[in-house]
Amino acid sequence: MSIEDLSSVSPALARYAREALFDGLWKRPGLSPRDRAVVTVAALIARSQTGELPFYLNFALDHGVGPKEISEIITHLAFYAGWANGTAAAAIAQPIFAARGIGPDQLPPASPQLLPIDQAAEDRRARTVEETVGPTSPGLVEDTGVVLFRDLWLRPDLAPRDRSLVTVAALIANGQVQQIPYHLGRAMDNGLTQVEASEIISHLAYYAGWPNAFSAIPVVKAIFESRLK
Amino acid sequence: MSIEDLSSVSPALARYAREALFDGLWKRPGLSPRDRAVVTVAALIARSQTGELPFYLNFALDHGVGPKEISEIITHLAFYAGWANGTAAAAIAQPIFAARGIGPDQLPPASPQLLPIDQAAEDRRARTVEETVGPTSPGLVEDTGVVLFRDLWLRPDLAPRDRSLVTVAALIANGQVQQIPYHLGRAMDNGLTQVEASEIISHLAYYAGWPNAFSAIPVVKAIFESRLK
Amino acid sequence: MSIEDLSSVSPALARYAREALFDGLWKRPGLSPRDRAVVTVAALIARSQTGELPFYLNFALDHGVGPKEISEIITHLAFYAGWANGTAAAAIAQPIFAARGIGPDQLPPASPQLLPIDQAAEDRRARTVEETVGPTSPGLVEDTGVVLFRDLWLRPDLAPRDRSLVTVAALIANGQVQQIPYHLGRAMDNGLTQVEASEIISHLAYYAGWPNAFSAIPVVKAIFESRLK
Repeated sequence: MSIEDLSSVSPALARYAREALFDGLWKRPGLSPRDRAVVTVAALIARSQTGELPFYLNFALDHGVGPKEISEIITHLAFYAGWANGTAAAAIAQPIFAARGIGPDQLPPASPQLLPIDQAAEDRRARTVEETVGPTSPGLVEDTGVVLFRDLWLRPDLAPRDRSLVTVAALIANGQVQQIPYHLGRAMDNGLTQVEASEIISHLAYYAGWPNAFSAIPVVKAIFESRLK
Repeated sequence: MSIEDLSSVSPALARYAREALFDGLWKRPGLSPRDRAVVTVAALIARSQTGELPFYLNFALDHGVGPKEISEIITHLAFYAGWANGTAAAAIAQPIFAARGIGPDQLPPASPQLLPIDQAAEDRRARTVEETVGPTSPGLVEDTGVVLFRDLWLRPDLAPRDRSLVTVAALIANGQVQQIPYHLGRAMDNGLTQVEASEIISHLAYYAGWPNAFSAIPVVKAIFESRLK
Repeated sequence: MSIEDLSSVSPALARYAREALFDGLWKRPGLSPRDRAVVTVAALIARSQTGELPFYLNFALDHGVGPKEISEIITHLAFYAGWANGTAAAAIAQPIFAARGIGPDQLPPASPQLLPIDQAAEDRRARTVEETVGPTSPGLVEDTGVVLFRDLWLRPDLAPRDRSLVTVAALIANGQVQQIPYHLGRAMDNGLTQVEASEIISHLAYYAGWPNAFSAIPVVKAIFESRLK
């Protein structure tokens, strides 16, 4: 909806869109407009909110997020938010890509040369998952290794730091606090700063609602503190 | 869908709609039809379930919820459920307002004279948020004060008790139990009775699913008990 | 979206659809294709993801799930996921039923002869709910007994084991872990095997996102262990 359309139902919402969102939040330091676009797109896909998605996909493409990155964000969230979240986002992106002349040559290949794996870190991750998940769901252990961490996460057209950014944004946006510690730690290992992580939360207060932001605080706080030690 | 449409897929669902919902739940004492309409609209907006929203927005407007209140409920939930929940609801409300001839003069102004603030309560709230959230996300502390508690919550066209009703309904409807204690306490401070709170839960069992109602019980129980002391 | 459509946004997603999903997950032992269809349909309805629902409803009808079962799954989830989830699913199913010539004679009656009740188990359930929920929401206690356990759960056109399968799938798919212990125990009492329960989780990793699968693990693990004693 345009600001004028919003105004015909809620003049207040139109004012907040201008003042609090676009002249406030989006201009605040701590997180670049490009990263805010990635976080917003991730939250909308993760929450199946396709109504606002065309606007923010175009915004992202106009603010430094490349078509390959958009393609990878959608693919990544098909696993981290749900298959139907991925396909619904692809259905929204398709006409936008077509209108911008983004063809197959500008998309990541189905099976690219993967990034090199950090074998020691992967062994630690695999061991932990085997111990905690293995006795309950061997199928989940298998797919988490083969499909996610030894394939999806190594695809080169979305930087590991951005893949983590998308994952953390999706977790906060859906209130999935139990998985935040592992992925926020991984995000910070991949280069996300504490100031950026802090500002992701206040950005998502707007795009995923205040309660999800507040629910994330205690687990994020614990991660920040544990990394100081 | 009409009862007849429901019947073409599930005659049982059509029967439950008549017997359990409209001749049962909606006529039960403990919560007025007007408040049930507010709770239902809040749950549908908070859960992005726009399919049923036109029916219940019209129902609300026909049962004592004014256009200004609808406008404020949508604005409020843009913050408490997510920005895209607010804009999706505005898109549904726009043609309904137009069909009823609800023009700009019947909407709350963008910047009205705000209600007087309870400075002592606000100071307590701000201090708690500063202590718990401040070290992790200063941006969230800032916006919670400036945009929500010293602006949104003081807008006069939705009574504080109703603003709390909407907030609590959204929290229960989305399973966000961590934020229920603060907001249910605030709701009861604002005049919501225990009988009403109790019946909000069983109303939301239908409109947000039984599991969300059951998940709310332990935290609501703890609040009821703490207020007896 | 077809595989070709997916490919125009993400060739990788098209590859995962073929390799990981349809040639992988769906062919894996541990859970029959028929049960996978039930779990997938339940997850999509429970998460309001109507975009993929037509494909999987048709898939289910082609793989051993009868029209009466589909009708009952939708009715069941109107209570276990939310009323609007049920009506949105009915709106999707209506043209599919019409196209297949599924008329009123092939649907479960609104008020069939109910299955016999296990009175001792029902007394135990009712006593527990009375004790835990009764002091907080008498209305919820009443409806849980009258509408759900002494009516909905006894409807004969969806086997108790499948009703439990749908309920557990919906709980995992929405991250409602608090209600999993009761319903998974009931599912296994109703004949769901541990191998099937285990594979439901890895199936839902794809259809409800990895975080929901991982969040389910600790509670499912505890149930598996408690039943060994």
